[in-house]
Amino acid sequence: MPPLRFLILADGAFGPETSKTANSAIRYIPGQVAGVLDASAAGRTAQEVLGFGGPIPVVGSLDAGLALAPTALLVGIAPRGGRLPEAWRGWIRTAIERGLDVWSGLHTRIADDPELAALARARGVRLRELRVPPADLPVSNGRARDVDALVVLTVGSDCNTGKMTAQLELLRALGARGLRTRFVATGQTGILIAGEGIAVDAVVADFIGGAAERMVLAAAPGADVVLVEGQGSLVHPGYSGVTLGLLHGACPAAMILCHNAARRLIGEYHPGEAWRPIPPLAELVRIYEEAAGWVQPARVIGIALNTHGLAADAAAAAVERAARETGLPAADPVRFGPAPLVDAVARAAGERRAGRTPA
Amino acid sequence: MPPLRFLILADGAFGPETSKTANSAIRYIPGQVAGVLDASAAGRTAQEVLGFGGPIPVVGSLDAGLALAPTALLVGIAPRGGRLPEAWRGWIRTAIERGLDVWSGLHTRIADDPELAALARARGVRLRELRVPPADLPVSNGRARDVDALVVLTVGSDCNTGKMTAQLELLRALGARGLRTRFVATGQTGILIAGEGIAVDAVVADFIGGAAERMVLAAAPGADVVLVEGQGSLVHPGYSGVTLGLLHGACPAAMILCHNAARRLIGEYHPGEAWRPIPPLAELVRIYEEAAGWVQPARVIGIALNTHGLAADAAAAAVERAARETGLPAADPVRFGPAPLVDAVARAAGERRAGRTPA
Repeated sequence: MPPLRFLILADGAFGPETSKTANSAIRYIPGQVAGVLDASAAGRTAQEVLGFGGPIPVVGSLDAGLALAPTALLVGIAPRGGRLPEAWRGWIRTAIERGLDVWSGLHTRIADDPELAALARARGVRLRELRVPPADLPVSNGRARDVDALVVLTVGSDCNTGKMTAQLELLRALGARGLRTRFVATGQTGILIAGEGIAVDAVVADFIGGAAERMVLAAAPGADVVLVEGQGSLVHPGYSGVTLGLLHGACPAAMILCHNAARRLIGEYHPGEAWRPIPPLAELVRIYEEAAGWVQPARVIGIALNTHGLAADAAAAAVERAARETGLPAADPVRFGPAPLVDAVARAAGERRAGRTPA
Repeated sequence: MPPLRFLILADGAFGPETSKTANSAIRYIPGQVAGVLDASAAGRTAQEVLGFGGPIPVVGSLDAGLALAPTALLVGIAPRGGRLPEAWRGWIRTAIERGLDVWSGLHTRIADDPELAALARARGVRLRELRVPPADLPVSNGRARDVDALVVLTVGSDCNTGKMTAQLELLRALGARGLRTRFVATGQTGILIAGEGIAVDAVVADFIGGAAERMVLAAAPGADVVLVEGQGSLVHPGYSGVTLGLLHGACPAAMILCHNAARRLIGEYHPGEAWRPIPPLAELVRIYEEAAGWVQPARVIGIALNTHGLAADAAAAAVERAARETGLPAADPVRFGPAPLVDAVARAAGERRAGRTPA
């Protein structure tokens, strides 16, 4: 069976900062993206909107999207709270009628909509809910600390800072260096790209850590490095529980702190919901090492900056400043390449193999 | 309609340390407890098994329990992970056949069992799932910090340390002092006693904080003090995510640290799952104040010890030692009365009213 070709639904939201799932699919599985549906950007290309993605077209109507011969509709943005906007139901219905599978990362299950579920059955198309977790998750108990592989978790100054992207860039680069590296996806976009994983923010709260623990234990055998996609932030009041559960379930020995260099306030990417100033990076390093230590000590070994939106010289200065402020290797892995972070992970993996703790 | 009379199912587990929901119902709503089903303690009374509860009988079979004329069956222990033991299904089925409502705090919904659900419909009995949360919870955003009332959260050195009990003792005592006091239930037992609440460990992980925030915002108007039932522990790898989400959603100004004075290892109440030594109390105070401060500063204002199992002089010494180690008021609110903690909360409430932060 050939890979699916996705029409990505991102209406009113396709842009560098606003359509994380769509953008990641375009970056990491571009051959599977037929086009993007967003009336506000119709007629442009992914390259023009995002700065990458080449000629992938943006269309303004479902009909124009269907003309690109997609085999699946991907609900490509995750509204706050994850629920299905009413207006999108009609498009999803039409897509199902036309025989497309539907992949969704929403909290609301499309399969729970009786009309859409019945229609999907009648048409024989698949509804793939990226956020629906397995039913039999355990409660975590720190078992992941015992794996031989180096477990690396990305952590953040906020939501939406590049925690998945940093790991995917490291996955590619560490593999190129000959390290046996596995990626553990914990969010809908990562699952879409990896083809497997558990959306930890969608599990019943008691099992956040258990989901992480199970995935790490499954990924570790035979691996030198296990890269776990982080979620949320310990300093964001809406998502800190998910972040800490993931940290204590995955039991990483090393963390990489991810930060959007242009952002000043927690949550400012959601209009009207900005919280308070993001703490300095060195303070965030301290916070994450403190919180890890309540269960199992872990070190932050590098800083991954997202400098999108900054001019080149400002971006380079931000990377240099992050390194100076924290005394750690820093990089924008997308813009300037992940080499300093790859070095840091490879060194920590070597030290773990040698039976020492990461530097 | 008269209040329900519960037959509490706690087979093989009825005891001071092993049947939290049953014990709390016996302590706080004894008039609603017809009896306890536990073959291993049959023939004894609640008083003999627990040291409180008077003549409430323990029976060894469902038939003997039904002879006590209960109107509801309460699934009175919460197995790790919350799932329904296979052997209990038959008892639940028989209880439904005999016209009893079933109240359950399990993760597994009894209503999801097709046979039991159909039987309940046919018999017209109610299946009340204490852990099933509302479907429309928000993501929290720190709004609870703005309420006028003093919000007090109990936090713990581990799970099962008396976080609900401390609040229920404070509720009674603060009310007696004329403070308008509300209790926010966050677990199945608290919900059973309060008649309302949300089991925060059963919500989808993204909404832990939102559940807490919603309940605090609803309870605060007109109250001097809002007592929020804590859950889990920041130092327990299985439950720390729930604990932090609850802390950052509820935004308390004050915390009371709860500790079982006889316990040395985290999780040792679950055989075979003991984790590592519980940190010293002063270190736990620092940890909770640190974690609260990532979103909104809060002070630990007292220590609630559970000294059950210690001799009287050892218990008194443990309370004195806790006060000395932390420099905070300490009490076993059940054994010695909550007065030192009541004083601390009343003082903090007065200071909040006066526009100052809690001492």
